[in-house]
Amino acid sequence: MRAKGEAFRTIWQKPGDSSIVQIIDQRMLPHEYVIRDLKTWQDGAHAISAMLVRGAPLIGATAAWSLYLAAAAGRDAGNANRELQLAAEKLRNTRPTAINLGWAIDRVLAVAAKCNEQQLVTTLENEARVICDEDIEISKGIGRHGLTLLEEISRRKAGGTVNVLTHCNAGSLATINWGTATAPIYFAHQRGISIHVWVDETRPRNQGSQLTAWELAENGVPHTVIVDNAGGHLMQHAMVDICIMGTDRTTRSGDVANKIGTYLKALAARDNNVPFYVALPSTTIDWTISNGIRDIPIEERDPQEVSHVYGLAGSGTESVQTIASGTSVSNYAFDVTPARLVTGLITECGICEASEAGLARLFPERAVRK
Amino acid sequence: MRAKGEAFRTIWQKPGDSSIVQIIDQRMLPHEYVIRDLKTWQDGAHAISAMLVRGAPLIGATAAWSLYLAAAAGRDAGNANRELQLAAEKLRNTRPTAINLGWAIDRVLAVAAKCNEQQLVTTLENEARVICDEDIEISKGIGRHGLTLLEEISRRKAGGTVNVLTHCNAGSLATINWGTATAPIYFAHQRGISIHVWVDETRPRNQGSQLTAWELAENGVPHTVIVDNAGGHLMQHAMVDICIMGTDRTTRSGDVANKIGTYLKALAARDNNVPFYVALPSTTIDWTISNGIRDIPIEERDPQEVSHVYGLAGSGTESVQTIASGTSVSNYAFDVTPARLVTGLITECGICEASEAGLARLFPERAVRK
Repeated sequence: MRAKGEAFRTIWQKPGDSSIVQIIDQRMLPHEYVIRDLKTWQDGAHAISAMLVRGAPLIGATAAWSLYLAAAAGRDAGNANRELQLAAEKLRNTRPTAINLGWAIDRVLAVAAKCNEQQLVTTLENEARVICDEDIEISKGIGRHGLTLLEEISRRKAGGTVNVLTHCNAGSLATINWGTATAPIYFAHQRGISIHVWVDETRPRNQGSQLTAWELAENGVPHTVIVDNAGGHLMQHAMVDICIMGTDRTTRSGDVANKIGTYLKALAARDNNVPFYVALPSTTIDWTISNGIRDIPIEERDPQEVSHVYGLAGSGTESVQTIASGTSVSNYAFDVTPARLVTGLITECGICEASEAGLARLFPERAVRK
Repeated sequence: MRAKGEAFRTIWQKPGDSSIVQIIDQRMLPHEYVIRDLKTWQDGAHAISAMLVRGAPLIGATAAWSLYLAAAAGRDAGNANRELQLAAEKLRNTRPTAINLGWAIDRVLAVAAKCNEQQLVTTLENEARVICDEDIEISKGIGRHGLTLLEEISRRKAGGTVNVLTHCNAGSLATINWGTATAPIYFAHQRGISIHVWVDETRPRNQGSQLTAWELAENGVPHTVIVDNAGGHLMQHAMVDICIMGTDRTTRSGDVANKIGTYLKALAARDNNVPFYVALPSTTIDWTISNGIRDIPIEERDPQEVSHVYGLAGSGTESVQTIASGTSVSNYAFDVTPARLVTGLITECGICEASEAGLARLFPERAVRK
């Protein structure tokens, strides 16, 4: 997909200075398009925990690039390996729910363990690049497979508009490019399928209305922002043909952790016979656990994310406090949708049933390993 | 219940000048407590359509007081009846979903039709007062009946805290006092039952975080604000003992129209065996229709309610625009929860099953009339 009229990535090395990694500060979108430099692994850890970057695949990629920055800083100080281990430990704890974070860190550490200290920085730089390139291919794979679902609906509606509902941002901005849930949408739009996206606002952080709406607009995909409360009503009135969501972690049995509120949409989809799909890179599957509601840790975030809302006011941007001071607020960031409510999982390797058997058929090697 | 340390009503005649009706401008809460004068029926119509007042019972009461203002203005101009009919027609169209609006207007017009022009203003003044007094008695009746449900849960939990989830504001502010969904909560709290309320923020207008949280705080009831997305997760983890909602219109078969998003919570309650009750004055029952999803008109409101959020910034209050300019937004204000998802209806006359048979048993005369 494109942004600002150009092909883009969400994370890259600064042209002319490969010691600096650059990201889009997603907290400022859609009102401001701000590029930030990550000069240290601590910058990377802060970018993850403060949500300058978010989305399971991009979190993983940012961690990989941060480990490269750690190795480089360590090399300059003569203790590359110690710095790497320290950074890995700290990065691992920046966000608890997305599994890609630990996956990317483990992958980089494994590569690091096999190379000598002279090659460390170059090797990790290369590994971070490969992780990003692979992620783009994964998104494209999801796009190709998910496209078949949208083509089928389009055929059934004799070319009528396919209405997709999505929650949060499982878009380009959550990955390196193309996104997970959005990849089939972009592919369908490029092929001339008439498509319209209902974009859940996604309180409290408004990733839907502020990120998904932004990237769909940048790419000319028709869309309408709705409050998170609206999806049930739309489904009752046959205004949604398919739901496509992302996920931060999927159990081997097909339970799906995703942005808080996803479960409510899955219930509405089931109640109204609307197909409910989850798009995911296979790196998002946690083969070690089966019961998502019991075993996936759900991050609780700062109450200020609920009590304050960011937007445009007058000539600049600012946050307003919507709730009376001193009010108790709780802020669970994710919920778990049980596999029984998921019509299917769209992965880079194909579409499967959200079940242990379905996933094992698609990924026999990994499923067996556990 | 109380507010600002005093017993209060949401609508009243100005002390010392009965030609003026006063209301709390609910758009400004919780940040500012502003009393507004309604001097003409047009002021009343604006208060309803622009949501200075909201909530089915208070909308009805405001319409009744507006008709009094219309009769008074018409008397001064020598055309009381014409002004009354004109006002009734305009008021009827201010909000389409709440049935109490039409109910209150019809009731006042019926009274007006039976009295001579000399008595008209005094008669309508009296009728508006009676409607308000009756509404308070209705809320108390709902409180008494609903209290039994909370007492039962408290007993089962051996005095442990009863966790109630509510959506929007079906509170004192939606009625004349006590509220519908909140009346059992206030009654339980007064009787020393340990109670805690999960308050749905209720986008787009934030009636939960801005109104329900405010009135619970004024009355010392422990509560926590959550985003609308969170209820499913809480119910999955047994953190909700009962849901109590309000309604703007209930069909004779027990389908419930309420603030958008109510249906999603009902689905989550059913999926997790959490009792889901709807509290309502019997005036909210529409005996003429049976299929709520088909027959209850759902109001679509200004997209600006979604794109802009009101709150505190710096020393004052303001609205920020959260969404990029030009973004398409849809804003359905209500949804319909089918009777099959409703555990029971709490009315001023008792609790019944959400079904034609259940309602007919509780209101045999009215059910028969149709």
